Amino acid sequence: MEQDVVRLRLDVAYDGTGLSGWARQPGRVTVEGLLEDALGAVLRVPPPALTCAGRTDAGVHARGQVCHVDVPSAYGSTSACATLRRQLAGVLPRSVRVSGVCVAPPGFDARFSALERRYVYRVCDDPAALDPLARAYVLAWRRSVDEGRMQAAADRLVGTHDFGAYCRRREGASTVRHLRELAWRREGVLVEATVTADAFCHSMVRALVGACLAVGEGRLDPSVPGEVLAGRRRDSRLPVVPAHGLTLEQVGYPADEQLAARALLTRRRREP
Amino acid sequence: MEQDVVRLRLDVAYDGTGLSGWARQPGRVTVEGLLEDALGAVLRVPPPALTCAGRTDAGVHARGQVCHVDVPSAYGSTSACATLRRQLAGVLPRSVRVSGVCVAPPGFDARFSALERRYVYRVCDDPAALDPLARAYVLAWRRSVDEGRMQAAADRLVGTHDFGAYCRRREGASTVRHLRELAWRREGVLVEATVTADAFCHSMVRALVGACLAVGEGRLDPSVPGEVLAGRRRDSRLPVVPAHGLTLEQVGYPADEQLAARALLTRRRREP
Repeated sequence: MEQDVVRLRLDVAYDGTGLSGWARQPGRVTVEGLLEDALGAVLRVPPPALTCAGRTDAGVHARGQVCHVDVPSAYGSTSACATLRRQLAGVLPRSVRVSGVCVAPPGFDARFSALERRYVYRVCDDPAALDPLARAYVLAWRRSVDEGRMQAAADRLVGTHDFGAYCRRREGASTVRHLRELAWRREGVLVEATVTADAFCHSMVRALVGACLAVGEGRLDPSVPGEVLAGRRRDSRLPVVPAHGLTLEQVGYPADEQLAARALLTRRRREP
Repeated sequence: MEQDVVRLRLDVAYDGTGLSGWARQPGRVTVEGLLEDALGAVLRVPPPALTCAGRTDAGVHARGQVCHVDVPSAYGSTSACATLRRQLAGVLPRSVRVSGVCVAPPGFDARFSALERRYVYRVCDDPAALDPLARAYVLAWRRSVDEGRMQAAADRLVGTHDFGAYCRRREGASTVRHLRELAWRREGVLVEATVTADAFCHSMVRALVGACLAVGEGRLDPSVPGEVLAGRRRDSRLPVVPAHGLTLEQVGYPADEQLAARALLTRRRREP
């Protein structure tokens, strides 16, 4: 019965090390599985179904994951949300945190209302100097890279394109995406790519970053990743980098009154 | 034969999780043991003896540890140091890094030439929001703390004092230290203490931080830690916080021409 249910928004962070990604799988420890089981235990109901903004792969981390869950309407108060937040912190392992629990605004859908996802991929190109306290989320790269060359390659990838050359293709699914930002920045031995798009197809960020690194170390010309994009076919010269350098940092949503319209628009595009 | 030996300075970082501290112990994995064995393997000599600036306890991390080692004079060139740095990176686990290798200036002693040690202790006083990617080096504290109260307590501890109330006493060893800085700073849910002194006695930083946290959560008046200091006796109201929140960030040395004089001065003070 619809009226007995309230939708909650959960803000979630996790260390993906040793986790088999977001999606629940039998016999594996996943973020979805841990969260659903924790919610079930705390709410004393069967594990409720979660919907998230970015279904991260095995080993990928998140600081700004967002998901929603429909729960009995008794949990629809600020104090009930605060209690739930505290209880989840007690039940969940330290590797998974629910930092925010609130009643979602009307029309909110964690996946379909989202306007954009922002990921950061972190690389250290001097493995002797990789901060041991950051090694779980920074890739050690043996050859030094030139961030100017990488940015030149990145600039040719930004925009609305068919990213088929940078995705694992799925039958019948579009690989057209709007890549808003692919920005490289160096701070000492740490080189970071901030990658923002309306949405990403599977392994897209790691393929884009791998292409830039191949350019950054001088192995390929900065024009190559753009040419591969235009050719729409995967190219074995461009590596796909490991998962552990990747963190989902933020999910952007429109103003509350546009949430429902945005969700409708996204659904129509994705499910033609 | 003295003339066949060159002293190297090593800059070292480690994730203390799962390590039994700095000092070599039979049957335990320690930083000193790992480094000495790695040096022995790379230099093809018996593991040489290392001397470090701060002998950290089990579970304590370091980003700015400094040590020295005397090796055959063939390693006394810039290119040999660069090779050694790269080889150590390959041999050591990712939890221990030697980010710098250079020929030490004359008179340099990693321990006795040091002017000061700077540690940072990191606390998150909202365990639901503790960044999972930082949980190895940030303490989760269940009660929220007031950094203004903690600073008021800290201000009464700074200076040259007998820190016997904040140390594990050792027979015959002085517990007089010059605490230069004990500064609290908040950034969101993360509360950090920067603690700088000429040297620290055993468990001193963790005892000082524990005293401040007891004040910060409102359990004790800001005057109490200073009174306990003056009384020179440990006080069971003041907790000693766990090791994993503590990181040795930096060791300060004087200008090269004062290294030998400083080492002499420190030796005289410590070994009367």
